[in-house]
Amino acid sequence: MRPTSSAETFPANTPAASQVFTAVLSHGPLARLEVSRRVGLSPAAVTKAVRPLIEAGYLVEGADEEARPALGRPANLVRVDGGRALFIGVKVTGDEIIGVLTDLCCRVRVARHLPLPDRDPRTVLSGIAELVEQLLAETDGPAAPVLGLGIAVSGDVDRGEGTVRYSPFLEWRDVPLAELAAMTTGLPVTVDNDVRALTVAEQWFGAGAGLTDFAVVTVGAGIGCGLVVHGRVVAGAHGVAGEIGHVTVDPAGPLCHCGNRGCVEAIAGEAAIVRQVHEATGVRLTHPGEALALAREGVAGAREVYARAGEAIGRGIATVANLLGPERVIISGEGLAAYDLFAEQIRDAFVTAAFGSAAQCDVRTRPLPFEEWARGAAATAIQSFITPDTSR
Amino acid sequence: MRPTSSAETFPANTPAASQVFTAVLSHGPLARLEVSRRVGLSPAAVTKAVRPLIEAGYLVEGADEEARPALGRPANLVRVDGGRALFIGVKVTGDEIIGVLTDLCCRVRVARHLPLPDRDPRTVLSGIAELVEQLLAETDGPAAPVLGLGIAVSGDVDRGEGTVRYSPFLEWRDVPLAELAAMTTGLPVTVDNDVRALTVAEQWFGAGAGLTDFAVVTVGAGIGCGLVVHGRVVAGAHGVAGEIGHVTVDPAGPLCHCGNRGCVEAIAGEAAIVRQVHEATGVRLTHPGEALALAREGVAGAREVYARAGEAIGRGIATVANLLGPERVIISGEGLAAYDLFAEQIRDAFVTAAFGSAAQCDVRTRPLPFEEWARGAAATAIQSFITPDTSR
Ligand SMILES: [Zn+2]
Ligand SMILES: [Zn+2]
Repeated sequence: MRPTSSAETFPANTPAASQVFTAVLSHGPLARLEVSRRVGLSPAAVTKAVRPLIEAGYLVEGADEEARPALGRPANLVRVDGGRALFIGVKVTGDEIIGVLTDLCCRVRVARHLPLPDRDPRTVLSGIAELVEQLLAETDGPAAPVLGLGIAVSGDVDRGEGTVRYSPFLEWRDVPLAELAAMTTGLPVTVDNDVRALTVAEQWFGAGAGLTDFAVVTVGAGIGCGLVVHGRVVAGAHGVAGEIGHVTVDPAGPLCHCGNRGCVEAIAGEAAIVRQVHEATGVRLTHPGEALALAREGVAGAREVYARAGEAIGRGIATVANLLGPERVIISGEGLAAYDLFAEQIRDAFVTAAFGSAAQCDVRTRPLPFEEWARGAAATAIQSFITPDTSR
Repeated sequence: MRPTSSAETFPANTPAASQVFTAVLSHGPLARLEVSRRVGLSPAAVTKAVRPLIEAGYLVEGADEEARPALGRPANLVRVDGGRALFIGVKVTGDEIIGVLTDLCCRVRVARHLPLPDRDPRTVLSGIAELVEQLLAETDGPAAPVLGLGIAVSGDVDRGEGTVRYSPFLEWRDVPLAELAAMTTGLPVTVDNDVRALTVAEQWFGAGAGLTDFAVVTVGAGIGCGLVVHGRVVAGAHGVAGEIGHVTVDPAGPLCHCGNRGCVEAIAGEAAIVRQVHEATGVRLTHPGEALALAREGVAGAREVYARAGEAIGRGIATVANLLGPERVIISGEGLAAYDLFAEQIRDAFVTAAFGSAAQCDVRTRPLPFEEWARGAAATAIQSFITPDTSR
C-alpha cells in the first residue's frame, strides 16, 4: 500500500529507470557506460533514463559531493544526490522501537530509540507516530522532504497489502499497519518483514553488494532468513519466504510454537535456549544473558545446549545452500553474542550437510545492531519510492 | 559452452529481445501490446525487438499456422514459426538414452530410445552421436536446420562450462560433455542438470507456464528439484541448486551416498526404498517394482517404508515452501508409480511442516515420461540459442 499523501513522485515510470537508479545508488558514482553494463540496457536507454532523474535532482553529475563538472572532473559520472530527499525507517522489537532518519542514499542522519511499554498495535502505532515526529523535527525543511516511512516487523508480512498477517513475537494477526501508520503520520508507508528489510540494506550497501544470490540468516529471539535470488529479495507467492527458523532439522526435536517439531527455532531460538539451559542445569533463568553466562562458566549441560543450537543453525544454512546455492551466507542478529559457543558446530554441521560444491558457499558473520535493521526499513521505503509499479 | 560450429545465430543481441521472444514462445500468439505488458518493456521497444525476428523468420504475424494477415486476421498478433529451426534434446538415464527432435516451439517431431550397455562417458558419447545422427536423418534439409543439441544429465552440472562436475548416478566426475559432444556431432551443445532442463520445459509449456515462482520435485532413482524464482530457473552460484534430495530431514536417519545422514534421498530414493523393504520383509529384491508389489500386497513392513518415504518427501517440499514460498510445487518422476502408497503422507507431512501461509502452496502431481525430460533438454538448447550473452 502506498497512500498518496506525499505529493512528490519519482520521475521513473519504467522498471528500467528504477533499475538504473538502484545501480547508481548502490555502486555510484558510475559512468553511464558502466550503468549500461550493470543493468543490461543499451547506453542510449541509460542516457534516456538518467535525464529526467538529473532534471528532478535525484541524480547529479560528478564524482563526489564537492565535484563540479566544470572543474574538469569526468562529467559522465552520475551519482545519487543523497540530500535531495529523506526517509524514515523504523524497526519494532519486543521492548523498544528504533527509528532512523536517512538521506536518499540511506545514510543515517539520526537514530532514536523509544521504549515500548507493551506490544499492543495501538501502543506500537502511537510509539511510531511519536518517533516519526521527533525525526521530522530534525529535517531542514522543504528542500529535503521526507518522502517515505518504512516499518520492519518480524513475522509473516504482506508488503504488497501493507499488512502484518501474523507476528508470533508481537502476537499480532492481520494488522493493516501501513494504512494505520499512513493515517497517523501522513507519510507513504512500506511495511515489510524485518529480516527482508535488513536484506535489502545488505544488498544495496552491505555484505551482499554486487552479489546476485546471497542469504542473510539472523539468529536471536527468532531465526530468520532473507534470500536474494537473481538479484531480488524473495518475498514468496503467499507472503512467506526465508522461514529458515521453521525448517525441520530434527523430527524428534522439541515442539515449536508453530506447532511443528524440531524446527531450527525450536532448538536455537533465544527462548528455546533459555528453556533448554534451565532444563539441563536446573537453574532458574530470567534473562538470555544468564544462560550465556552459565555456558561460558562451563556449567554442565549449558554448553551442550549451545552446541546443539549451532548444529541446528548449520544444518538450516546447509539446506539453504543445497536448495539455492548462494554465493554467500551472512549470519547476523543479536544471537551472535553467543557465537564463540556455537561457531564450530555451525561450521561442522554446514560442511557435513552441504551437498557437493554447495559447501563452497562463503559463510560469514556480520554484527548488525538494531539501527541497521531500522536502516533496512528505510531502504524498503526508498525502494517503494523509486519502484514504479508495485511495492514488492 | 557454445561452439560456433553452427553458422546461424539468433538476431536478438539484447536481453530484451530474448525476453520478447520467450514471451511469444510460451504464450503466443500475442499482440505486441500484450508482449509489452508481460515483459515490462515499452510498446516501442517491443516493436523494435520484434522487427529483426520477423525479418529472420523466427517470428511471424498472424494467429495460427494457416492464418495470413492478408486474410483479415488481426495483423498485430505475433507467434513463433516453429518450423523455422529444429533442436535435439537428449536425456541420459542409467540404461538408455532418449532423444527427441523438436521444432523451435519445442514440439516433439520424433522420439527415439537407445539402450546403454554401460555408463562410461565414451559409451554415452557414442550413443548420443548415434542418436543425433538418426534424428538428423529425420529433418527436411536446410530450410529447417538443426541449430542446437541439449543434453540432460543428473547430478552437479555446470551449464556455463558445459561440464558434468559430479554425477553420482553415472559415476562421472568432471566430464567436459558439451565440448566432447560438440566435437562428435558438430552442433552447439548445452549441457544441464536433467531436473533443471525439465523445469525449463515446465516453465515455458507445462504446469509452470505463467508462474514466476514454482518448483518441480522429481521422485525416482534420485529426488531432485528444479526451482524457478523471479521467473528464472535457479542454477546456484557454485552449480548446485535444488538439491532437495540432500536436505536432511532426519539426522538419525539412514546414511546417504553423499556422506550425510537422513537426506530425503536416503529415505525416499528408489535404492533406499528397495533396501528398506528388503530389510523389513527379508525378501530378496532385484527390481524396484518388486518392492512396490510387496507393499501393494500388504506385506508387513513394506507399506511403512513407502509411508516414511512420503513423509520425507513432504517434509522436503515444506522446506522448499518455507524458504521460497512458491505458487506451486509439481511432483513428477518415475517414482509417481508408487504415489498411491505415499500421497497421503506427503500431504500430511507438508501441511504439518509448512509455516503459516506457505501451506497455501498448490502441491500437485504430474506424470512426465522420460521423453518430456529429453524435451526439457531441447528447451535448454533453444534457450541457449535465443539468449545472447551467457548460457546460464
Ligand atoms: Zn516452527
Ligand atoms: Zn545425501
